[in-house]
Amino acid sequence: MNHALISEIFGQLDALPIVDIHTHVQFNQPNACNIGDILSYHYYTELYNSAEFQDGALPLGDPEALTRVLFKGLRLIKNTVQYDWLMAIGRDFLGLEASDWQPECWRKVFDRSCEVMGRAEWVGELLEQANIVRVYLTNSYDDDLSGLNRSLYTPCLRVEPFLNGIEQAAERERMSAYLGQPIEVPCDVIAALDIALDSFSEYSLGYVAASLAPNVRTWQVAAEDAERLMRRLIEGGSWSDDDRAAWQAYTMGRIAEACRARNLPFHLMVGVDRAAYAQAVPSGSDLPDSISSLRGYDWLFNSFPEVRFPLAVLTDTTGLELASAGWIRHNVYPSGHWWYANQPSEIARELRRRLDVVPGGKLIGYFSDAYYLEFILPKFRMYKFELATVLAERVERSLLHPNSNPFTLDDALELGNMLLVDNPLSIVGTAESALNIA
Amino acid sequence: MNHALISEIFGQLDALPIVDIHTHVQFNQPNACNIGDILSYHYYTELYNSAEFQDGALPLGDPEALTRVLFKGLRLIKNTVQYDWLMAIGRDFLGLEASDWQPECWRKVFDRSCEVMGRAEWVGELLEQANIVRVYLTNSYDDDLSGLNRSLYTPCLRVEPFLNGIEQAAERERMSAYLGQPIEVPCDVIAALDIALDSFSEYSLGYVAASLAPNVRTWQVAAEDAERLMRRLIEGGSWSDDDRAAWQAYTMGRIAEACRARNLPFHLMVGVDRAAYAQAVPSGSDLPDSISSLRGYDWLFNSFPEVRFPLAVLTDTTGLELASAGWIRHNVYPSGHWWYANQPSEIARELRRRLDVVPGGKLIGYFSDAYYLEFILPKFRMYKFELATVLAERVERSLLHPNSNPFTLDDALELGNMLLVDNPLSIVGTAESALNIA
Amino acid sequence: MNHALISEIFGQLDALPIVDIHTHVQFNQPNACNIGDILSYHYYTELYNSAEFQDGALPLGDPEALTRVLFKGLRLIKNTVQYDWLMAIGRDFLGLEASDWQPECWRKVFDRSCEVMGRAEWVGELLEQANIVRVYLTNSYDDDLSGLNRSLYTPCLRVEPFLNGIEQAAERERMSAYLGQPIEVPCDVIAALDIALDSFSEYSLGYVAASLAPNVRTWQVAAEDAERLMRRLIEGGSWSDDDRAAWQAYTMGRIAEACRARNLPFHLMVGVDRAAYAQAVPSGSDLPDSISSLRGYDWLFNSFPEVRFPLAVLTDTTGLELASAGWIRHNVYPSGHWWYANQPSEIARELRRRLDVVPGGKLIGYFSDAYYLEFILPKFRMYKFELATVLAERVERSLLHPNSNPFTLDDALELGNMLLVDNPLSIVGTAESALNIA
Repeated sequence: MNHALISEIFGQLDALPIVDIHTHVQFNQPNACNIGDILSYHYYTELYNSAEFQDGALPLGDPEALTRVLFKGLRLIKNTVQYDWLMAIGRDFLGLEASDWQPECWRKVFDRSCEVMGRAEWVGELLEQANIVRVYLTNSYDDDLSGLNRSLYTPCLRVEPFLNGIEQAAERERMSAYLGQPIEVPCDVIAALDIALDSFSEYSLGYVAASLAPNVRTWQVAAEDAERLMRRLIEGGSWSDDDRAAWQAYTMGRIAEACRARNLPFHLMVGVDRAAYAQAVPSGSDLPDSISSLRGYDWLFNSFPEVRFPLAVLTDTTGLELASAGWIRHNVYPSGHWWYANQPSEIARELRRRLDVVPGGKLIGYFSDAYYLEFILPKFRMYKFELATVLAERVERSLLHPNSNPFTLDDALELGNMLLVDNPLSIVGTAESALNIA
Repeated sequence: MNHALISEIFGQLDALPIVDIHTHVQFNQPNACNIGDILSYHYYTELYNSAEFQDGALPLGDPEALTRVLFKGLRLIKNTVQYDWLMAIGRDFLGLEASDWQPECWRKVFDRSCEVMGRAEWVGELLEQANIVRVYLTNSYDDDLSGLNRSLYTPCLRVEPFLNGIEQAAERERMSAYLGQPIEVPCDVIAALDIALDSFSEYSLGYVAASLAPNVRTWQVAAEDAERLMRRLIEGGSWSDDDRAAWQAYTMGRIAEACRARNLPFHLMVGVDRAAYAQAVPSGSDLPDSISSLRGYDWLFNSFPEVRFPLAVLTDTTGLELASAGWIRHNVYPSGHWWYANQPSEIARELRRRLDVVPGGKLIGYFSDAYYLEFILPKFRMYKFELATVLAERVERSLLHPNSNPFTLDDALELGNMLLVDNPLSIVGTAESALNIA
Repeated sequence: MNHALISEIFGQLDALPIVDIHTHVQFNQPNACNIGDILSYHYYTELYNSAEFQDGALPLGDPEALTRVLFKGLRLIKNTVQYDWLMAIGRDFLGLEASDWQPECWRKVFDRSCEVMGRAEWVGELLEQANIVRVYLTNSYDDDLSGLNRSLYTPCLRVEPFLNGIEQAAERERMSAYLGQPIEVPCDVIAALDIALDSFSEYSLGYVAASLAPNVRTWQVAAEDAERLMRRLIEGGSWSDDDRAAWQAYTMGRIAEACRARNLPFHLMVGVDRAAYAQAVPSGSDLPDSISSLRGYDWLFNSFPEVRFPLAVLTDTTGLELASAGWIRHNVYPSGHWWYANQPSEIARELRRRLDVVPGGKLIGYFSDAYYLEFILPKFRMYKFELATVLAERVERSLLHPNSNPFTLDDALELGNMLLVDNPLSIVGTAESALNIA
C-alpha cells in the first residue's frame, strides 16, 4: 500500500460532491432523530440478532431502549464494516470518541444525538458537511410527493407492485384505490403505472426500479396470456411458479415500454431471495443466492435498445457477467455495490474488474442505499477509500507496466470524478439533478 | 506487504494453542510412523498421479516403496502448498534440509522418519512442539472409543450412514448388527442414531457432522413418507433421485431434532461431488461443483433455531452465501476453509470477507482435516500466515481509513485469538475441550 | 508492490520466446495491414459500440473510415486494458506517442501504419521484435493449408461443425462437398472428420479444439441413437434440446476416440453463451454465464484417460473447478485465460490459485487468441506482468512464510519458463513446435 498516494487520492475524492442515486431516505423525515434511529437500521439489528439471538425481543419501537440494548452488543460486531460506519457517524456528526461507545455510555450518546439531530438546522448542516447535493429516493406509486424539495431529492418509482405484488388481493385493492376503479385486466395495472409515472414526472422522476429474485426470465408474453392470468386471480384462483414468471415477464416488457416512451432509465437490482431467514429482525430476512445469472434478461435488454438499464447485482458470482454486459451491451450500466456486496473486499474486486474492461463513462460508481441521510457520508467514504486504493494501484502499476501509458494523479481523479459525479448525472440524471454541481 | 508487522502478528498467533475442531486422526494411532505414511495422504498421491499418471500402480500398502516412488515425483509438485506442508514437516519434526528431498535421499529420509516417529515419546513431543491442545475426531457410529484420551480428543459422529448410507444393504446390515435388531422402519435408524449418541456422550461427543453434495434440499418430510421409502428398500426396491432427497431431508430433520434435544452442534460440510474422477487414487476422486447454493438449507436452519450449525463450504462460489448466512442467521457459524478451498488464496479472500461482515465471535477460524497429527501444525501455520497478513492489512488500513478507529496490534491479536481459540471452544467446545487452555 | 523485483522478473519473462497455443491468425495474411485492421478487432468495435451506440453504423469494411470513427471514441475506453494493448502496438511497432491517439491524428496514424505494416519485411521484423516462435491457428476442416509455413505455424482443427453445426442444412452441404458424398449417417460425419485429421496431419496438426456452451453434458451415446437423430434431420425433421445434447455427446466421444487413436490433445474452451446481444458488432454478441460447471465432462475425461484435455474456462465461477480438475485429474490441463477472463484481475486470481495447487508442469500459462500477429506481444505482456507480480509475491512471501523453502529469483524464472514455454510444448507441442526454441 502506498499510503501517501492513497491518502492524496482519497482526500480529493472525498472533496467531491455526493450524488447518491439510490437511497431509502424519506424526504419528509430524511434524518435520524437520535442514535436509536441509527441503530434501528437493519444492518445493526440483524448483526446483533445474529451475534446474540434476540428471538424477536428487540425493542424496535423504542429508540431509547433499543440504544441501551444495542450498546451492550456493539462489542460483538466491532470487527465489521457496519461498526465502522457507526464510528464515523459518532465522530463526524456527534463529536464522539471511540471510548464513548461503551455500554455504560448509552445515555450520554443518546442525549448527545438528540441534541445534535434534533436541531432545526441539522439537515442543512449535515448536507453541507457531507457535501451531499443530490439524493434519489425509493417511492411507492401511491406516495404523496407534495412538499418534496426538488433541488435536493429525485423520486424513483418502485415497480415490484406491478411485477409481482398484484398476485395479492391486498395489493390489488390498494392499486384499485389508487386508480379509482377496480383492477380487473392487465390494462388496469398499466393504467395505474401510467398515472404514477405522470404524477411522478411533475417531481422530475429519476427512474423506475425493481429488486428481483435470482434468474428472472424475460420474454415476449402475449397480452392474451396476461389477461388469462389476471382473470384467474380475479376469479379467486391462484398462480403457479410459471404463471408468476409469465406475469413478471409481461409487466417487465410493459414497464420497459413505458421507460422507452418517457426516456426513463430502468434500474434493476438483481439476485435477492426474500424471506429466507425465519427468525429475522425486520428487513433482515433476505439472502443472496450464488446461483444467479443475468442470462434471463437477454430478451429485455435486446428488445429495448433505447432504454438505459443501470444494473446492480447482489452476489460476487454475477460480477463478471455484469462487467461483461457493461462491456459489450450499450444499454447496461454496472451500478454500485449492493447490499451483501456492499463491503470493502467485494467492492475492491468489482472495481478492478469493471475498470479494466467497461468503458469508464458507463460505470455508476456507488449508491448508499441509506435509510437516513446520516449514513450517506460513511458509506460513500467506504467506497471512496476502496476507489482511492484501486486508483493508487493503477498509478503505481502504470509506472512499471509494459503496455500502459503513465496513469497520473490527474487521470486518477478524472476517473474518480466520472464514477462518482459525471456518470450518475449522465446515466440517470434529470435536469434538476445537475443543478447543485458547481 | 508490511513484513515486520506480518512477522510480529504471525509470531504471536503461532504461539497460541491449537484447537483443531475437525480432523480424521485415529485416536489409537494418531501419528504417522514414517514418511511413507505422510506421503500416503491423498493430497500427495493425487498430485503425483495427476502430474505423472500411475493408473493404480502406486504401492499404497508399502510405505517404503511409496516413499521411493513419490520422492521421484516431488519435483513435479514443488510449486504447491501441499509441498510446503511437507517441507515444514521435514524441517520442524525431522530436522531435514530442503536438499534432503532429492529422489536419491529417500532412504535417508525414510530411516530418519522411522527413528523420530517410532519413539514412544513422539506423540507427546509433537503435541508439545506444535502446542496442540484439542483434537476433534471423525467417528463412525460403531467405532469403539474405549481408551480414548478425553483430555486431548473429542469424538464427533459422522451421520452420512443415516442420511444416505442406508440405501445400501451392506450399511443396513452393519447398522442392524450395531442396533442388535433388523433395520426395518425409520425408527430403527433413529434408534441406532440415539444409541450412538448415548454411547458417544460418555466420551464427551463434540458434535455430529456430515459432508454433503451441492444443492441439498431440506424440508419437512412426513414420517409416513419415510416409512414408505424404507419399506421399498427392505422389499428389494430401489430409490429414485427424489426418493433419495426425501430420505435425506427426513433424516436431516431427525438428526437436527436429536441435536436440539442434546444441545449438540451439527457441523455441515457442503458441496462435494463424490466419485467424479475414475482413475483416482483412494480418497482422490471427489471434486467441487461451482453450482452450489445454500438455499436448500433454509428449512433446516429456520426449523431448528436452537441448534448451532457450523458450516464449511467447498467452493469459492458459495463463499458470499456463507458469509451472508453467518451475518444474519444466529445459528450459522462459518467454519474454516475446507479441502479444495483450503489454500492460501481462497483463505485470504474468505477471511477478508468474513471479517468485514460477520460478528467476530461467530467465526471458527480453521480446522486441519488432518489424517495424522503431524499435519496439524503446517496446516494451521498456512492459515495463521494468511490471517496475519489480513490482520496486518487491517492495522495499516485503519491508519488511513476515514471510518475506522485505529486497529492496533492488540486488536489484531484479540481477533486472532477469537478465531483460533475462543470461538472454537464456545461454538463447538465441550466441558473437556476447555481444559487444556491455560 | 516490490517494484524492483517485479521489474526484474518481468524483464526476464519478457525475454522468453513466445509460444502461442491459440490464435485466430490467418497464416496467409497473418498481420494487420493498417491501424484500421487493428481497430476492427471486436474488442475495439464492441467497446466503442457499448460506449457510444452505433446500431450497426460502423464502417467495418472500410479501414480508413473505421479509423476515423474509432479515433473519436478512443477517449471513451482509455481506462480499459484493451486500450493499453493499442497503446503498446502504437508505441512498440509504429513508434507513436500517447499524444498521437487524438481524434485529429487519425490520418497520420493510419498513414504511418500503412507504411510500417505494408512493407514486405514487416512480418519478419514483427516476429523477431516480439520473439514469437510458434503460432497455433484455428482452422476449419475445409481450410486449404497449402503454403502454410510449418516452421512457424501449427494448424488446429475446430470441431464445432461436427459437434453441432451438422444440424444446419448448409453445414451438411458444405461437409458433403468436402467429403465428396452426401452426409446421410453419422459415419459420414466421422469420415469427414477423419479426412480432415489425415489432411491436417501433413501439416503437423496441433490439436482439435471446440468452444462450448456452459454445462455441456457428456455420456456414452449409442450409435443407433445417433443414427436415429441424423435420420430425422435428413428427413427434414428438427431437433429438440435433448436431441442436440445427445448428438453433441455422441460426437464428443467420437472425436475423443480419434484423438486417442492419433495421440492428439482435445482443447476445450468452456462456458460461452452465443448470440446473447442483439445489437452487437460482428463477433461481439456472446457473453459468459456464471452458472457453468465442468461436472458434465466427467464422462469424457474418465472415458479417455489417454487423451490430454487442455481446458480454458470463460468465467471466474468455474475457476476453482478448473484448478481442482488440474489438481487431481491427470488428463486435464488448465489453459490460459480466455476472453472475458483475459484481463488482469481475473488472470492474477487464477494464477495464484493454480500455482498453489496444480502440479506446475500441467499449466499452460497463456494464449493470445489474437486475430493478427500484432496483438500477440501486448497480450502476452499483459499476462507476463501479472505473472511477474504473482511470482514476486511468492519470492517475498517465502522469506516470511513458516512452511516455505526460500523461493528464489531463479525459482521464479524456472516456474515462469515452465508456464510460458516448456509446458505448452510438452502438452500440445508437435515435433515442429519445438524447433525454434534454442
